[in-house]
Amino acid sequence: MHGAMIYAPGDVRFESLDDPKILQPTDAIIRTAVTCVCGSDLWPYRGAEPVGAPHPMGHEYVGFVEEVGSAVTSVTPGQFVVGSFATSDNTCVNCQNGFQSGCLHREFMSTCQADYVRIPNAQGTLVATDEVPGEELWPGLLAVSDVMGTGWWAADAAEVKPGSTAVVVGDGAVGLCGVIAAREMGAERIIAMTRHESRQKLAREFGATDIVTERGDEGVERIKEMTGGIGADSVMECVGTSEAMRQALQSARPGGDVGFVGVPHEVAVDGEELFFSPVGLRGGPAPVRRYLPDLIDRVLSRRIDPGKVFDLTLPLEQVAEGYKAMDERRAVKTLLTP
Amino acid sequence: MHGAMIYAPGDVRFESLDDPKILQPTDAIIRTAVTCVCGSDLWPYRGAEPVGAPHPMGHEYVGFVEEVGSAVTSVTPGQFVVGSFATSDNTCVNCQNGFQSGCLHREFMSTCQADYVRIPNAQGTLVATDEVPGEELWPGLLAVSDVMGTGWWAADAAEVKPGSTAVVVGDGAVGLCGVIAAREMGAERIIAMTRHESRQKLAREFGATDIVTERGDEGVERIKEMTGGIGADSVMECVGTSEAMRQALQSARPGGDVGFVGVPHEVAVDGEELFFSPVGLRGGPAPVRRYLPDLIDRVLSRRIDPGKVFDLTLPLEQVAEGYKAMDERRAVKTLLTP
Repeated sequence: MHGAMIYAPGDVRFESLDDPKILQPTDAIIRTAVTCVCGSDLWPYRGAEPVGAPHPMGHEYVGFVEEVGSAVTSVTPGQFVVGSFATSDNTCVNCQNGFQSGCLHREFMSTCQADYVRIPNAQGTLVATDEVPGEELWPGLLAVSDVMGTGWWAADAAEVKPGSTAVVVGDGAVGLCGVIAAREMGAERIIAMTRHESRQKLAREFGATDIVTERGDEGVERIKEMTGGIGADSVMECVGTSEAMRQALQSARPGGDVGFVGVPHEVAVDGEELFFSPVGLRGGPAPVRRYLPDLIDRVLSRRIDPGKVFDLTLPLEQVAEGYKAMDERRAVKTLLTP
Repeated sequence: MHGAMIYAPGDVRFESLDDPKILQPTDAIIRTAVTCVCGSDLWPYRGAEPVGAPHPMGHEYVGFVEEVGSAVTSVTPGQFVVGSFATSDNTCVNCQNGFQSGCLHREFMSTCQADYVRIPNAQGTLVATDEVPGEELWPGLLAVSDVMGTGWWAADAAEVKPGSTAVVVGDGAVGLCGVIAAREMGAERIIAMTRHESRQKLAREFGATDIVTERGDEGVERIKEMTGGIGADSVMECVGTSEAMRQALQSARPGGDVGFVGVPHEVAVDGEELFFSPVGLRGGPAPVRRYLPDLIDRVLSRRIDPGKVFDLTLPLEQVAEGYKAMDERRAVKTLLTP
């Protein structure tokens, strides 16, 4: 098979690799329908995270079941399946509590920018569609496996409620999917913070009612002005920097909620600031598996179209260009077709 | 009138002071029934917070209305009233959202260790009882004005639910009241972390089902052992140090909740640790006013007796000894009678 390998910051290569094999009875092998590059893949690509030894990349996937281990009975070869970037048995106590991203047997996916992928914990991780969906729906279903699931979690963690005001910090794919989630959850006002025209346009298409272009203290000031001086009910932090976190915490009203889903890089939250906000804060790797059946339905019924976050489509062999385009912010998110 | 003044760490004096006067039409003057010393008063007393110029102390009170400003119609002279350490108009948007501790007109009380006290925002802050309660109920009602209200908030912020497991970090008056709150909210298992025999006894009396004497990493280990390896549903952080906050975050299960109500002193929360926990975190000054009617009822009906946290009663003129006894941990909390 073929797939992406990262060797060093800025150095992603498309290579011939060993075919994946069933290693555990709980594994499945899928043939990738479509895969993609994630904003979090850019951390090592940009050298903001160590690369270490050369290794495969990618954690988003939809595909066709090729083969299953002896313990996997929930999906069968030929089915079209959607999974999560974090695998889960869906039976342990954390899974039962709805935190499949904290599954006791969790393994993070990391080999999905490839035409074949081994999925651990396949029984609990993969959800098959009733029939093979039309190709035009594949990008939306792919988004569900990570960015849409994570945007949903951001809105859920920020306790977005019908009639409320929600703010989205971050205009990457997750932030844009957060706008979709806030709209679906009934937020009356959805304020997207972005200064990029094309992202503003997509945010509005997804349901944003207002755009704020200011950042940092000015951005907070603007949000306060727009919310009667007190701040928003719900704020989604979809970046993962200290600046974005502070902006999010300060944009929420007393008693409001911040959902933070940007993978944090050297973020420290000042206890006193948090204490005197006082806002609720919840974040972490999204329990995508909890949302999969619902989100798959919303995509298949064409109620939502998170696949629009893909504004560049490349054949898998051009994966390196896919990274480059996102790094240079020429693309929000790159879809890769094997 | 007479009251406590702090001059320097360790130097609290009982002095003759000017009588308080109505300064705003929204003020009331109360004659103090009982007042007390708070754990947070020990921060300046111990020099952990600057004292600055000599100033009065105390923010907990129940008493009799002496006089009201022209805008105060909800309470009348002679009534017995309970308030909160944070005053609130109870009408602004933050109050309406249930966060009276974030009232747009909030003033923190700071002159209550005295026989007469001026209460700003009296209309929204004070709750009168139907009749003057028996003196044996005064300590419980006094506790409601701060430590019991704060313990309730800790349990509420930690989302304690019927049948759940709750951990209380901190064995001061707030932590002990947190045990009461968790029991009232229906927690099945309430684990109090304390190594002091008298506090263990009171915690058990209040409803603790288990006592853990270990602290820090060992304490976390013990909690994990007791909760099937995953941690507790709800954890209340009632101390305000970095160590206690870490202990609390690590003791909660994935998807669990930490309510933090200890006033933080140089606490920084590591974003990555919080992200990968992943727990919900909510804290801040308790919106005691929200809980007052309910908590007053629970005390008057003798359903709860948070007044038991007072294990030392002194006449107000011995306020200095009240501080000393708490500083030396000879007392959990000192009740002062004018």
